[in-house]
Amino acid sequence: PGKKVLIVYAHQEPKSFNGSLLKIAVEELTKQGCRVTVSDLYAMQFEPRATRNDIVGHLHNSEEFNYATETWEAYKRGGLSKDLVEEQKKVQEADLLIFQFPLFWFSMPAILKGWMDRVLVQGFAYDLSKSYDGGLLQDKLSLFSFTTGGTKEKYATRGDVRYLLWPMQHGIMHFCGVKVLEPHVCYAPKHVSEEKRKEMLTAWTQRLKTIWKEEPINCSPEWYFK
Amino acid sequence: PGKKVLIVYAHQEPKSFNGSLLKIAVEELTKQGCRVTVSDLYAMQFEPRATRNDIVGHLHNSEEFNYATETWEAYKRGGLSKDLVEEQKKVQEADLLIFQFPLFWFSMPAILKGWMDRVLVQGFAYDLSKSYDGGLLQDKLSLFSFTTGGTKEKYATRGDVRYLLWPMQHGIMHFCGVKVLEPHVCYAPKHVSEEKRKEMLTAWTQRLKTIWKEEPINCSPEWYFK
Repeated sequence: PGKKVLIVYAHQEPKSFNGSLLKIAVEELTKQGCRVTVSDLYAMQFEPRATRNDIVGHLHNSEEFNYATETWEAYKRGGLSKDLVEEQKKVQEADLLIFQFPLFWFSMPAILKGWMDRVLVQGFAYDLSKSYDGGLLQDKLSLFSFTTGGTKEKYATRGDVRYLLWPMQHGIMHFCGVKVLEPHVCYAPKHVSEEKRKEMLTAWTQRLKTIWKEEPINCSPEWYFK
Repeated sequence: PGKKVLIVYAHQEPKSFNGSLLKIAVEELTKQGCRVTVSDLYAMQFEPRATRNDIVGHLHNSEEFNYATETWEAYKRGGLSKDLVEEQKKVQEADLLIFQFPLFWFSMPAILKGWMDRVLVQGFAYDLSKSYDGGLLQDKLSLFSFTTGGTKEKYATRGDVRYLLWPMQHGIMHFCGVKVLEPHVCYAPKHVSEEKRKEMLTAWTQRLKTIWKEEPINCSPEWYFK
């Protein structure tokens, strides 16, 4: 109650299963008295490409463009493009970040990866010696909620689904100091019965009811690779 | 000699270290008599977002947009957008795919992830029961060549760099039936001496001289997680 949640959502179709998971989350969290903000990336036509356009005004080094350096410098002088500033404001205010997306190639869709690449710049999300447990986005929680095309069994035959969470959970969120809650995976919603799909939606609502009591995972290699 | 190579390149700045690695690869492979094609994603302003625009003409199901289904159907009837058809042609012709990029957040920059998301559609790169060793892009090799911001030591303290290669090498290339050569990692070129940088460039040329004699890795969990 009173908590702020940012849901970064990456699906093109409101009628999709991801769309339903988003709707449910907004409803349940709002009912709890949370303030929920949604970044609907496709609807916003969010730009995923990291380019010179992200810097307003002069470059620090116009002879040789380096994105990391330029966005860091631009951040410090308040010279990042408007869309990035807005997303950073949402992140700054949030107690919990939920990423809702369909798994594309063992990872996020490019539009969501672009959100990570462009929003979490040096100076804002981390700094020279401020990373991992010292990252700049401490006291925040994150949760990766995604659907897969393949079944749970199919993933299990080729290793663990946790393997693919390493770059996202550890490499991004943990690096910025954000704590990570257990991921929420809905396996192959397209290939199960309508009844099973309803069960999956109910399970998501149920989980969200006690989300604020959850303990973050221990985001170290042991959790991922045992 | 006579081999065809596609280099998919994702850096904004030709003068960058990635730009040098690209230049060197084009020179060395051309010298060997290979036919080299480069997809310079930023220069092409390559679109990373997976949207309805990738399908020319009518949708299979316009009531509820599903990207995977629509691109699959569009591929079968020759209805994918021109930029995708062109990239697929390049992939089809290539014996070796080299991905050259700076590591962004333990993964590819969004513009390159978008290339994977949009180019490697069902029907073209894989199909219902045609994946992994049965994938549709067999008899091809791939190589991930990237630079990092952090030093080798920094990566080593938090697990192995191989962990982050799982989604890219196994989840994408292996899934499509493409064999994977050892990755080529240049650690922290921004933070080493000019001499060390030159050594790294020379090492890349040297490696490419015998690239056609290399054996692919065994792309199973053991390689990544021991």
